[in-house]
Amino acid sequence: MTTLETMGAAAKRASRVLMNAGAKKDEALRSIAKALRDNAAAIIEANQIDLANGRAAGLSDSLLDRLKLDESRILGMAEGVEQVAAQPDPIGRVLEGRTLKNGLKIEKITVPMGVIGIIYEARPNVTSDAAALCLKAGSAVILRGGKEAINSNKAIMEIMRDAVEAAGLPRDCAALVTDTSRQSATELMQLSDYLDVLIPRGGAGLIKSVVENAKVPVIETGVGNCHVYVDESADVDMAAKIIFNAKTSRPSVCNAIETVLVHKNIAEKALPAIKAALDEKNVELRGCDRTRAILGDCVVPATENDYAFEFLDYILAVKVVDSLDEALDHLAKYSTGHSESIVTNDYSAAEKFTACVDSAAVYVNASTRFTDGGEFGLGAEIGISTQKLHARGPMGLNELTSMKFVIRGNGQVR
Amino acid sequence: MTTLETMGAAAKRASRVLMNAGAKKDEALRSIAKALRDNAAAIIEANQIDLANGRAAGLSDSLLDRLKLDESRILGMAEGVEQVAAQPDPIGRVLEGRTLKNGLKIEKITVPMGVIGIIYEARPNVTSDAAALCLKAGSAVILRGGKEAINSNKAIMEIMRDAVEAAGLPRDCAALVTDTSRQSATELMQLSDYLDVLIPRGGAGLIKSVVENAKVPVIETGVGNCHVYVDESADVDMAAKIIFNAKTSRPSVCNAIETVLVHKNIAEKALPAIKAALDEKNVELRGCDRTRAILGDCVVPATENDYAFEFLDYILAVKVVDSLDEALDHLAKYSTGHSESIVTNDYSAAEKFTACVDSAAVYVNASTRFTDGGEFGLGAEIGISTQKLHARGPMGLNELTSMKFVIRGNGQVR
Repeated sequence: MTTLETMGAAAKRASRVLMNAGAKKDEALRSIAKALRDNAAAIIEANQIDLANGRAAGLSDSLLDRLKLDESRILGMAEGVEQVAAQPDPIGRVLEGRTLKNGLKIEKITVPMGVIGIIYEARPNVTSDAAALCLKAGSAVILRGGKEAINSNKAIMEIMRDAVEAAGLPRDCAALVTDTSRQSATELMQLSDYLDVLIPRGGAGLIKSVVENAKVPVIETGVGNCHVYVDESADVDMAAKIIFNAKTSRPSVCNAIETVLVHKNIAEKALPAIKAALDEKNVELRGCDRTRAILGDCVVPATENDYAFEFLDYILAVKVVDSLDEALDHLAKYSTGHSESIVTNDYSAAEKFTACVDSAAVYVNASTRFTDGGEFGLGAEIGISTQKLHARGPMGLNELTSMKFVIRGNGQVR
Repeated sequence: MTTLETMGAAAKRASRVLMNAGAKKDEALRSIAKALRDNAAAIIEANQIDLANGRAAGLSDSLLDRLKLDESRILGMAEGVEQVAAQPDPIGRVLEGRTLKNGLKIEKITVPMGVIGIIYEARPNVTSDAAALCLKAGSAVILRGGKEAINSNKAIMEIMRDAVEAAGLPRDCAALVTDTSRQSATELMQLSDYLDVLIPRGGAGLIKSVVENAKVPVIETGVGNCHVYVDESADVDMAAKIIFNAKTSRPSVCNAIETVLVHKNIAEKALPAIKAALDEKNVELRGCDRTRAILGDCVVPATENDYAFEFLDYILAVKVVDSLDEALDHLAKYSTGHSESIVTNDYSAAEKFTACVDSAAVYVNASTRFTDGGEFGLGAEIGISTQKLHARGPMGLNELTSMKFVIRGNGQVR
C-alpha cells in the first residue's frame, strides 16, 4: 500500500464511526477550537518557518499576507470552527417520504459522503475551515494544501487530530497529505477505492489537472470568468456602480467580473460613465473597435484571450454588442458558468437573461460579488461549484452530504 | 473536429434551445410517440437485421429476446414516451428562496443539465426511453448503444430526430453514436468540452472502464452486489420469503441479492427454511463452513470471489455471522452500495442497520427488488445510481436536472 492508500483506508474506517456520531461531532469541533486557541504559539512558530521560506523563495507580498498567521487570525480560525459546530446537523434530514400502496414506508434522508478529499493552495486557515465543515457533515477528510503552507498545515492538523481523539472520535477523521509534490496531488485524484468525492479549490491550472487526471467524483470549484451585461434599458449610474463594485472591490476573487458587454444603443452614454467610475482605481480597459471608437486610444485593443480568461487584476475587457442575443452568444462561448449579471429595466430582457444564461448565479441589477455562501445565507462555504452535478454555486454543509433511501416494511416482496 | 466533437457541438447548440423550450418539449415527445407507431414496420425491418446478425454471432436466446422488437414492444416504447410527456416539467421548480436583508431576492431553481451522454447495452427500447427522459428534462442527449442493436437504434433515432424537428425543435436534441467500437465509447467519456454528464448503463466492465477513462462528470449506475441479513430476532418464514423473492424473481437484475448473511443464533432454524424455499428454483448455494455444517455437502464451499461479485444467476452465497456488527463489516467490505435488507423484529438492530449501512437503498423486512423508480413512485427511471454525488438510488426526471441561483436586485453592491 502507498502512503496515500494507507491514509485512505484509515479515513474510510474513521468515516464509519463518523457516519453515526451525532452530537459527538460538535464536541470534537469545540475541542478543535479550544486546541487551536491553546496552541496558537506553536502554530505561529510553524508559520514563521513557512513565511521565511516564502520570503526566500520570493513570494509576493500579497501571497505572504495570505500565508501569514498571527494570534488574531488563529482566534478567527477557532471562531470559524465554533460557528460550524453551532450550525444544525446536516445529517439525517428527511428530504422526502411517503407510504406506498403496499405499505412500504419510504424516506429519502441525508447521509455523509464518506471520505472527502480537498486540494487547496496557500491559505493555511483553509485547513481548519475545510476540516470543520467535513467533520460536521459526518465525513472523514483528507487535505492536501499548498507546499508554501506545509509547516503551518502540519502543526494545525496535528492539533486537530489530537483534539478529535480527545473528544472520543478517531484521529483519522482528518488527515493531511504531507508530500506536496504534484504527484501526490495526482495520486489523491485517483484514490477511487477510498475517496467518495474530491473538491479542488484553486485556479484554472489545478482544475484542468483534475479534469485530466481524476478517477474519483469531483466537484469543480472556483474558476470565474464573470460578466456584466448592460442592456439598452439600463440605468447608467446603476450600471457604473455595479461594474465598479464587481471589478474593483476584490479583483483577485472568482466572483469579480472580467468582461463587460454593452448594448450598442446605450454604449455612447454608458461607456464614458463606466470608464469614469473605473478610473478611480486605474482599471485598464481592453475593448473592441466600437468601444475604442467611443472611449479612444486609452482603451487597449482586446484580443480573443482577453475575453476567454480571468485577469484577476485591475483589468477589464469591454465589448459592444448589437443585442441581448449577441450577449447571450458571447456568454455561451466564454463564460465559465460562475456568475453573470444583467443591468436592465426591461422585464422581458431580465426574464430572458435569467432563463438563458447557464451559470451558477444569474443576477438582475446587482453585483456578481454576492456569489458567496455567507452572502447567500448558507453559512460557511467550502467553495463555489461551477459544475452542474450535485452542487452548483456556493456550497455549504448541505452540499457536503449525500442521501439514501430507507424503506421499512413488514415482509413485502415484489 | 472528430465526428464526436461535431456531434457534441451540435448537441450543445440544440441544448441552448431546449433550455427554454417549455411545453414544446411535450409536443416533441408526442410527435416522437406518433412517429414510432407510424414507422413500426421500418423499425421491425431494421431489427430483423440485428436479430439475424445476433443469431449468426451466436447470441444466447435471452440476449436475442432482449434485442427483439415487435409491434407490441414498439407500441410499448411509444406509450413510454407519452407517459414521460405527461409528467410534470422538472425544469423551473423553485427549490428554495428568500429575501436577504439587503433586499436581494434569491431563488434556487432547477435547470437542464445541458448535454447528457448515455452509454448502454443491448436493449433497443432504451434508445427511446432515455431520449424521452433527457428531452423532458430539457437536455440534449447523445446515445451510444450496443453494437448488437445498431440497426434498430439507427432506425429509431432517425425517426425520433425527424419527429423532434417536425415539432419545431432542433433535430440535434438527440443523436446516436453510430460507431460502436470501444474507442468511440472512450471518446464519448472524454468529450468534456460538450458533455455535461455521462450516464453509463451496463455491467461492471463498463463501469470500470468509465471510472478509468471518463473526463466528464459521471453518474455511475447499476452494479448491485446486494445482501439480505437475517438477524437473530427475524421471523424465519418472512426471511425465507424475502430471500426467495430477492434472489429468484429476476436474478439477472441489479437489485437481486447475491449473498445472505445469517446470525449464528438463528442459523440452525433459518438456513433449512431458506434452503427449502430456494430449492423450488434449484438455487445453488455457496456457503461458509458453518453454513455447510448445518446444511451439509449440497452447499458448495464459498470463496472470497463468491462474496465479492454478482452472480446474476440462480446462485446465492451464504455466510453465518456472529453478530450484527460482523454483518456490517461484511457489507462495508463487499457491498457495492446498491440495496441491502435486514430481516429483524428488534428495534435497535433495525435502527443500527439503517443508520450504518452505506447503500442507496436500505430495507427493513422487505425485498431488495423494490429498488426501482417505478416502485418508489418516481416515474420512469433512467438508471439506479450507486454513487454518492448528485443522485443516489433510482433516478427519475428530477435527478436529470441541475440547478442555479437567480438573484434579483435593484442596484445592490457588496
